[in-house]
Amino acid sequence: MELKNDLILRAAKGEDIDRYPVWLMRQAGRILPEYRAVRSSLSGFKELVETPERAAEVTIQPVDILGVDAAIIFSDILVVPEAMGLEYQMIEQKGPWFEKTIRSREELKLISDSFDINDRLGYVLEAIKITNRELHGRVPLIGFAGAPWTILCYMVEGKGSKTFSESRKLLYTDPALAHELLSMITKVTIQYLKAQIKAGAHMVQIFDSWAGILGTEQYAEFGLKYISLIADAIKEVPVTIFSKGAITSLGSIGKLNCNTVGLDWNMDITETRKMVGKSRTLQGNLDPCTLYSSHKEVENLTIKMLDTFTSKRHIVNLGHGVYPDVDPEKVKTFIKTVKNYELRK
Amino acid sequence: MELKNDLILRAAKGEDIDRYPVWLMRQAGRILPEYRAVRSSLSGFKELVETPERAAEVTIQPVDILGVDAAIIFSDILVVPEAMGLEYQMIEQKGPWFEKTIRSREELKLISDSFDINDRLGYVLEAIKITNRELHGRVPLIGFAGAPWTILCYMVEGKGSKTFSESRKLLYTDPALAHELLSMITKVTIQYLKAQIKAGAHMVQIFDSWAGILGTEQYAEFGLKYISLIADAIKEVPVTIFSKGAITSLGSIGKLNCNTVGLDWNMDITETRKMVGKSRTLQGNLDPCTLYSSHKEVENLTIKMLDTFTSKRHIVNLGHGVYPDVDPEKVKTFIKTVKNYELRK
Repeated sequence: MELKNDLILRAAKGEDIDRYPVWLMRQAGRILPEYRAVRSSLSGFKELVETPERAAEVTIQPVDILGVDAAIIFSDILVVPEAMGLEYQMIEQKGPWFEKTIRSREELKLISDSFDINDRLGYVLEAIKITNRELHGRVPLIGFAGAPWTILCYMVEGKGSKTFSESRKLLYTDPALAHELLSMITKVTIQYLKAQIKAGAHMVQIFDSWAGILGTEQYAEFGLKYISLIADAIKEVPVTIFSKGAITSLGSIGKLNCNTVGLDWNMDITETRKMVGKSRTLQGNLDPCTLYSSHKEVENLTIKMLDTFTSKRHIVNLGHGVYPDVDPEKVKTFIKTVKNYELRK
Repeated sequence: MELKNDLILRAAKGEDIDRYPVWLMRQAGRILPEYRAVRSSLSGFKELVETPERAAEVTIQPVDILGVDAAIIFSDILVVPEAMGLEYQMIEQKGPWFEKTIRSREELKLISDSFDINDRLGYVLEAIKITNRELHGRVPLIGFAGAPWTILCYMVEGKGSKTFSESRKLLYTDPALAHELLSMITKVTIQYLKAQIKAGAHMVQIFDSWAGILGTEQYAEFGLKYISLIADAIKEVPVTIFSKGAITSLGSIGKLNCNTVGLDWNMDITETRKMVGKSRTLQGNLDPCTLYSSHKEVENLTIKMLDTFTSKRHIVNLGHGVYPDVDPEKVKTFIKTVKNYELRK
């Protein structure tokens, strides 16, 4: 199916565009009453993720309602550790929880990196196919996975954490085990992303939510090394890397085999451009809290951000997932402002 | 009382030292069985904070047991919002919780910045006096307070948070109210720190735990502006500023009227030195997870860090509070390594 709007792919590849593309992290769900209606008809978050027809439905909602330039498949980064053998629960108001964790070589036997992706993650691939069928090429569909370091964080810690000190501990007590685990996650992630692309994902994003808790050296060794393997392996579609909080590693991320570098809301676009260079597209980074201000202020702050862009290599987004209590009308103002912004020639 | 060991004060002021001083954030409590014994004899954390004799006792424990070069008064940054009118509870395994929050001009009436510090925070001042009496000048005593931005975060959010989006929201919806609240907190904090100094604190540290969730511009406006007022007001003793996660603001922090700049574990010492300049002392920043490795490795990694220091303007610490499950023997190895390290002339 030919795409009617390929702006985001063109911006990612550094091709000419006539306006900046825009989408939101966590746009599928969270803010829309239409999403909550679907969600409340099911037992919970996991049932929604695992039911392809409904996952496709909420994936398309923001395209219909908000007018974004890309859809992102409704799923979770934790489907990968689950497919590898660690089942998770998503506890309301608390977040993810794993009954078993990997903190020793013995526990490493609980997981596997040799299985058929179709067999264990077929529901995501099916959701991608349904989404594309129902999108009729209106916008591209983004596939995604967690970065190996972030997935390790959850596999070792077993739950969310402010410091992930159990996960970071492993880097000192048994770095060889950490590398083995990261290699296994990397292998599965490459297969999983390739399967998403085969199923129809037009671009992919790697989320490294816990990049910022490591120093520059450790992040190079336990984070970027594995993202680099993934970026090298994915040649089919544009790749975006979003390493949250990794301000001091932006220069290194810009050297990876990726098209786009994602920015936090607290990273400075001008400084980041200096570190990343001109050969990559930047994605971001309006503070999601901006959307709590008045419509006029949302417009002003969005324009202020767009005015800092010095090239066409930008994909507009927030610098974090959209917060659940944001008024969808404010999101529409944000999107409309980007679409109406006149691009310098 | 004359101090027998004033290393940390000399290092803060840039005077000559014959070895680097060393202490740990959260050293008073957390890791020591001796602390847990005191704690379990009381109803909980708050009773310990509010009972001067016992607070003094746990403040001195790390001096006796670990051999650190400074004591830090056992207390909590949240005693300030409580004194201003917002009572807090410390819920086991969950953290702080406030029944009332400040999100409107109406709610601002719940708090006051005009009260006698001795009246509402006398228990901290009493603990400082007892500690110094019992320390007999063995080491200096550090007083502290939260930075206004971090205190605002708790007053608005009412509890811990990964994003403090309610607090950040206020900066967009009612910046004038945010500034008013920050001014009130600043006024009380200056009086509180001066009272601590009068009671016997030999230096003070300002903790801005949530500095890193703001972009550089917003942190300058809502964070550093108020820290600067505090730093300007405290002339009696050396001042340390620890703005966690504020990597992009290190240059600005180095220009404040402070002696020492605290570093996270994921900040690079060489890069930070470039940003802060030579006229300030740096404090930090061994990754607390280092202390999970073997004694030999703790020694090696500590020496590796010390070798990056290019001047005597350093106070050695971890880059975060010591984690509760760390073996105190490893902490002793860390401290011993610093004490045995031969300083370049």
